[in-house]
Amino acid sequence: MERIPILKMGKVLLVTIQVDLQDQVALALQDDLSAQIEKTGAHGVLIDISALEIVDSFVGRMLAGISGIASVLDATTVVVGMQPAVAITLVELGLSLEGVRTALNVERGMALLAADDRNQIDD
Amino acid sequence: MERIPILKMGKVLLVTIQVDLQDQVALALQDDLSAQIEKTGAHGVLIDISALEIVDSFVGRMLAGISGIASVLDATTVVVGMQPAVAITLVELGLSLEGVRTALNVERGMALLAADDRNQIDD
Repeated sequence: MERIPILKMGKVLLVTIQVDLQDQVALALQDDLSAQIEKTGAHGVLIDISALEIVDSFVGRMLAGISGIASVLDATTVVVGMQPAVAITLVELGLSLEGVRTALNVERGMALLAADDRNQIDD
Repeated sequence: MERIPILKMGKVLLVTIQVDLQDQVALALQDDLSAQIEKTGAHGVLIDISALEIVDSFVGRMLAGISGIASVLDATTVVVGMQPAVAITLVELGLSLEGVRTALNVERGMALLAADDRNQIDD
């Protein structure tokens, strides 16, 4: 079974989704990500979906699920790189990515996570 | 045709290879990467191959090709995340990744590229 690699960069885990997410792959990704968050103590998860041309309700639920799990483990999830056409379709279909934060690209997502970290330290 | 996404992080481009590299995908990646290096002025290219269970002579040539092209465009390529079993097989087969630099993981690859940049400024 293929697995999606998870790259660690400092306190952030980066996942690039390139294949169509089927049930098994999505479940394995959730498992691997939660294991990696626990192992590395990561504070942020960046999920790049720039290769996805379709984001349907299954993918939406999967992203929301990962975001929820990460949140319980004290990590913030940011979905980055969404194609403009995908954003248009999501809005037209009325699919809001409930509870999922987004950023234009990896750099902005990193900045968002770094700003979050600073705020938490300030609190 | 599927394309492999290229993520920009500062002066580094990051590519995660998750699918078997066929001719067309490999050629498209070379094209996209050289275009991105030109567009972004990136000084480094990180290629993560942690998802690859087999690195044969075709993949080896492809990595060497990308490394050569990037080098002409003044960018250093580092291949990261190679599985131990892949490294063993490469050595057993006598396939040396000629002209390709490697690092254990993305973080070490980033550090290597950063050290390179500093050296160039010192020169």
